[in-house]
Amino acid sequence: MTSFESDYNNGAHPFVLRQLIETNNSNSSSYGSDIWSEQARQKIRKACQTPDADIYFLVGGTQTNATVIDGVLTGYEGVIAVESGHINVHESGAVEAFGHKVITIPAHNGKMTAEDLRAFHNRFYADSSYEHMVIPGIVYITMPTELGTIYNASEIEAIYNLCQEYEIPLYIDGARLGYGLMSEKCDFDLPWLAHHCDVFYIGGTKQGALCGEAVVFPRNNAPRHFFNIIKQHGALMAKSRLAGVQFDALFTDNLYFDLSKHAINKAMQLRQLFSEANIPIKESPTNQQFVTLSHQQMEYLKSKILFETWEPVDETHSLCRFVTSWATTDEDMNLLSEALKQL
Amino acid sequence: MTSFESDYNNGAHPFVLRQLIETNNSNSSSYGSDIWSEQARQKIRKACQTPDADIYFLVGGTQTNATVIDGVLTGYEGVIAVESGHINVHESGAVEAFGHKVITIPAHNGKMTAEDLRAFHNRFYADSSYEHMVIPGIVYITMPTELGTIYNASEIEAIYNLCQEYEIPLYIDGARLGYGLMSEKCDFDLPWLAHHCDVFYIGGTKQGALCGEAVVFPRNNAPRHFFNIIKQHGALMAKSRLAGVQFDALFTDNLYFDLSKHAINKAMQLRQLFSEANIPIKESPTNQQFVTLSHQQMEYLKSKILFETWEPVDETHSLCRFVTSWATTDEDMNLLSEALKQL
Amino acid sequence: MTSFESDYNNGAHPFVLRQLIETNNSNSSSYGSDIWSEQARQKIRKACQTPDADIYFLVGGTQTNATVIDGVLTGYEGVIAVESGHINVHESGAVEAFGHKVITIPAHNGKMTAEDLRAFHNRFYADSSYEHMVIPGIVYITMPTELGTIYNASEIEAIYNLCQEYEIPLYIDGARLGYGLMSEKCDFDLPWLAHHCDVFYIGGTKQGALCGEAVVFPRNNAPRHFFNIIKQHGALMAKSRLAGVQFDALFTDNLYFDLSKHAINKAMQLRQLFSEANIPIKESPTNQQFVTLSHQQMEYLKSKILFETWEPVDETHSLCRFVTSWATTDEDMNLLSEALKQL
Amino acid sequence: MTSFESDYNNGAHPFVLRQLIETNNSNSSSYGSDIWSEQARQKIRKACQTPDADIYFLVGGTQTNATVIDGVLTGYEGVIAVESGHINVHESGAVEAFGHKVITIPAHNGKMTAEDLRAFHNRFYADSSYEHMVIPGIVYITMPTELGTIYNASEIEAIYNLCQEYEIPLYIDGARLGYGLMSEKCDFDLPWLAHHCDVFYIGGTKQGALCGEAVVFPRNNAPRHFFNIIKQHGALMAKSRLAGVQFDALFTDNLYFDLSKHAINKAMQLRQLFSEANIPIKESPTNQQFVTLSHQQMEYLKSKILFETWEPVDETHSLCRFVTSWATTDEDMNLLSEALKQL
Repeated sequence: MTSFESDYNNGAHPFVLRQLIETNNSNSSSYGSDIWSEQARQKIRKACQTPDADIYFLVGGTQTNATVIDGVLTGYEGVIAVESGHINVHESGAVEAFGHKVITIPAHNGKMTAEDLRAFHNRFYADSSYEHMVIPGIVYITMPTELGTIYNASEIEAIYNLCQEYEIPLYIDGARLGYGLMSEKCDFDLPWLAHHCDVFYIGGTKQGALCGEAVVFPRNNAPRHFFNIIKQHGALMAKSRLAGVQFDALFTDNLYFDLSKHAINKAMQLRQLFSEANIPIKESPTNQQFVTLSHQQMEYLKSKILFETWEPVDETHSLCRFVTSWATTDEDMNLLSEALKQL
Repeated sequence: MTSFESDYNNGAHPFVLRQLIETNNSNSSSYGSDIWSEQARQKIRKACQTPDADIYFLVGGTQTNATVIDGVLTGYEGVIAVESGHINVHESGAVEAFGHKVITIPAHNGKMTAEDLRAFHNRFYADSSYEHMVIPGIVYITMPTELGTIYNASEIEAIYNLCQEYEIPLYIDGARLGYGLMSEKCDFDLPWLAHHCDVFYIGGTKQGALCGEAVVFPRNNAPRHFFNIIKQHGALMAKSRLAGVQFDALFTDNLYFDLSKHAINKAMQLRQLFSEANIPIKESPTNQQFVTLSHQQMEYLKSKILFETWEPVDETHSLCRFVTSWATTDEDMNLLSEALKQL
Repeated sequence: MTSFESDYNNGAHPFVLRQLIETNNSNSSSYGSDIWSEQARQKIRKACQTPDADIYFLVGGTQTNATVIDGVLTGYEGVIAVESGHINVHESGAVEAFGHKVITIPAHNGKMTAEDLRAFHNRFYADSSYEHMVIPGIVYITMPTELGTIYNASEIEAIYNLCQEYEIPLYIDGARLGYGLMSEKCDFDLPWLAHHCDVFYIGGTKQGALCGEAVVFPRNNAPRHFFNIIKQHGALMAKSRLAGVQFDALFTDNLYFDLSKHAINKAMQLRQLFSEANIPIKESPTNQQFVTLSHQQMEYLKSKILFETWEPVDETHSLCRFVTSWATTDEDMNLLSEALKQL
Repeated sequence: MTSFESDYNNGAHPFVLRQLIETNNSNSSSYGSDIWSEQARQKIRKACQTPDADIYFLVGGTQTNATVIDGVLTGYEGVIAVESGHINVHESGAVEAFGHKVITIPAHNGKMTAEDLRAFHNRFYADSSYEHMVIPGIVYITMPTELGTIYNASEIEAIYNLCQEYEIPLYIDGARLGYGLMSEKCDFDLPWLAHHCDVFYIGGTKQGALCGEAVVFPRNNAPRHFFNIIKQHGALMAKSRLAGVQFDALFTDNLYFDLSKHAINKAMQLRQLFSEANIPIKESPTNQQFVTLSHQQMEYLKSKILFETWEPVDETHSLCRFVTSWATTDEDMNLLSEALKQL
């Protein structure tokens, strides 16, 4: 059945797969020292325009968040995130498992605002008992957010300026970074992002790879012994070539951005289809789209197409998520179009 | 200077001190096996009407919360608390340090409601991705709360009934338990409380002891190896007699309740004084009172009396905290009365 | 250059790769619910003769050890391992990161003996202060060991009997399990193993997969919420099909055992070659072989062949490791043979 | 019954108790800012000849070790200790609970040698896979040791020189520091010690206080936010005056050293008594003495005197511990003498 369930319900992008096949018979070093990992690092440094970047390949998003956050923080520090942030909601307490509190501030369509961050900071340090509280040590935002929304350059810049003023690093979770950057509404590119935060990751799993996330410390600013930290988190791949080959492929000939763009195009078509069907759809410029369906509509559509029920809206309606990806086809769109016409 | 700063700015209650003096020359066992600890346990069991209670003496409140919560929870579980709960705000992440998330729900004058707990529970288990979230494993409430408010019996009963239905233990932080129980507004007593939760602690530090909190598992329901857990948390006293002697004294001849009642009487007098001075005072039936003072009033009062500025109200006013205790004297009250008349 | 460096310096076994290619265009569920993971579980259950086994696929060995051990243990418990155990030496403290002590007892050629385990247990519980010590909660052994040695059935049986008597689960780290089971010296098979421990894992990374380890709880005895524990450890794969497809392939038509056998055959040839060259070689019936080379011999061999220097033996000799795998070819063996003849 | 069980089986030294009585009616600040804590800090700085020392008062030894070690270490680092070190054996995994491995090297009568430390260091960094191991971040020794032995100045100096060379701080656990310094065999004093390590603590609990340990960072070198770290560890006393008054008393008029000297004198008398009774006694120049008793001798002595059985020696003998303290009286010694004559 055609599926808009997620952007990780598919295999590898054909070019990624081909590179895995072509390299399969070669021997390699391991634990990150293989040649494809090194090639991938060079290509990512170039794409980010950060020649001195420290780059590490990990396996998945939750692991990456826990490893980076724990690696950057001192034992007693916590991470500031918005309430809807992935680390606060859907990572089973992986950050807390390493001893760090997730300190929450309000979310605005999934986003943090510099105003809230400033207000938190001022309130915190004005409180005479702040030494009895968890000291914030890193700021975490997602781009795009869990709701598919994106930041403007000016919004990130305002947050980053505060981070620099407060001497707290800014970390950007880019599980779907390409889909964010290729959105028509996005007013910045990868090099700009790399120069407006202290660490971020470029998601592979949801963007054409079988697994893998690339952590980038743009200015040779990885924590000391970060290799050891990765190992302690169980995040070190023995056959690091698996991630290396895939990222090498993704950053060859603009593939990462082209496949992201493809998903965005499909998402915009999808918005159009739902609008034509007079179904309410939330504002989202990326590959995750949220529509409000009646339970009757849901029942019919679920007989034709796979998608996720997100949360109840009222007694008779639910918010549902439709996700496009690099793998979404014209046929998928046609089937959706047909189904919507039957509602 | 006379002080209403806190209920831990004093020494030991005279009878507690006398018992420390009288027992000082005796040898004793250690690590909880001394005779005074055992006597204290018997007296507390009697006061709680829980003959099978497991009772342990720890040193301070944050330590007790971290030890009990970590001891009851399985590694991956979290604790449900209201946003203003002490463990969420003022314990420097001690719960998270042992790997557990503090899952927050709204506070109502510092209190949890059964409605919010039920709503959280239903929403949580209705979410198809709840296995990606932190599983709640214990409910934490404070009695009285950080704002001086108390629960009615019916409110605790409603929460406890849900906890039993959900098979999650209920833990009550009683750092100021006596001050809560002796409030005129309190419609239950210690035995009732002991029968409406799974674990609670009876605060000593703020209630006449130099240190010490008594953890009560009312039905012989301490976690396996809880002694070991206490030791692992650095909370095991070698000279356990220090806590034992003090709790033995506090639970002799109703002392714990009498000294609590004293503090409540003084708090009610204090409310009267502020009311007569036309100073807004928050509803609180216990020994912590919160008044709104203009900055001019604050300045004058601070020249006469010690008290704590709690948080800003507006540009020219702040909320201030005045705390009575077993040690508050008539002279303290007179000095406050005089000072208020000069405003 | 031909390489005997490790058994993770290669790509995927051709059949594994082919299955990745063939399944690449299908949609799938995620987080372990894909059809290939389910097929792989069925095949592994059959191979283990454990129809009720709970089976989970994780990414790598260190991650698997930390997740299983933390998942089985209560917060305050520790894991018993031999001093040379992988978790004690080469996992960067991943077990301790989740709060658990690695309690060590002596190693005998990398193996634990039931005698040592019994002696530890008796000494521990005879010590009146054992509640001040870390309570042992799981026993960890590796099969084969880090030194390539293997256990006899009677040795594992003796350890497992003690574990049952002490009510402590036995966990077997099988990062190279196939190479152990296919050794000529091994007197038991996979079903026997599955019935003589409480949890074990079947290594994929070093046995023909690109990544992946299969954790088996043989008797439907996974810890409650183990899915959640995996997620908390950052070990949950979104595209679980990556592991599922690979294990499905490995357990098709006896592949896992055939490729293991291949590696063992090559290892035995390698032993023969070193013996003929009069180079001392340690007793090892599996795919890891340890030889003592003079520094002159090392220098020459390193110009021809990749292998690892393990540890110094004396001023002029070092212990070196040569590892065969499913990927070792006749040509590799010939090149080694030629090189040895030049020494 | 007269007791040589431990040095924490007594109350407070009379002068310490008197100071608690005399200060009892004064109000005070809390959380370490009370005037007695400040006075005690000044006296300790003077006694150590470290005018810039950062000094914190915690409650007990295990807590202090866990807090200091976790406070100094980065998340992934471990602590080097000898196998018999208290943190490795008798603290229920408190160090590991905060995520840090205890890395062990051999003990020589409870002591670490510079040779072993150097050998460990060299072996560790010579190992090409050390990034897969736990990076050592602090060295822990006890003075006196768990076996009552003490270091010479030259031994500590050698260890400290290595620590400086390796840029790893040296931490000295001084739970019984006074008893060590006042030993006739000790060839250094408190100021010397304070200048030959990076952090140490002066034990109070076993040295005349009801509770309390004074952590000294001699050169204003406490970790950033150490107050917060203490709070996170549940080690912050609300009524810090309890520790402050006691340490103020202990460091008045040389009391700490005088009472230590008293215990040493009694210990030397005790050695004499056992020697006269022809009972084998281990070399120990401090207040803990270890004698080998036949089970028959043990039975008789236990009917007269309290002491601890330490560990079995052979079928018919056990090692037993006799501990003197500031509280040991001439009468205690006479009773022991009488009892030994009856053997």
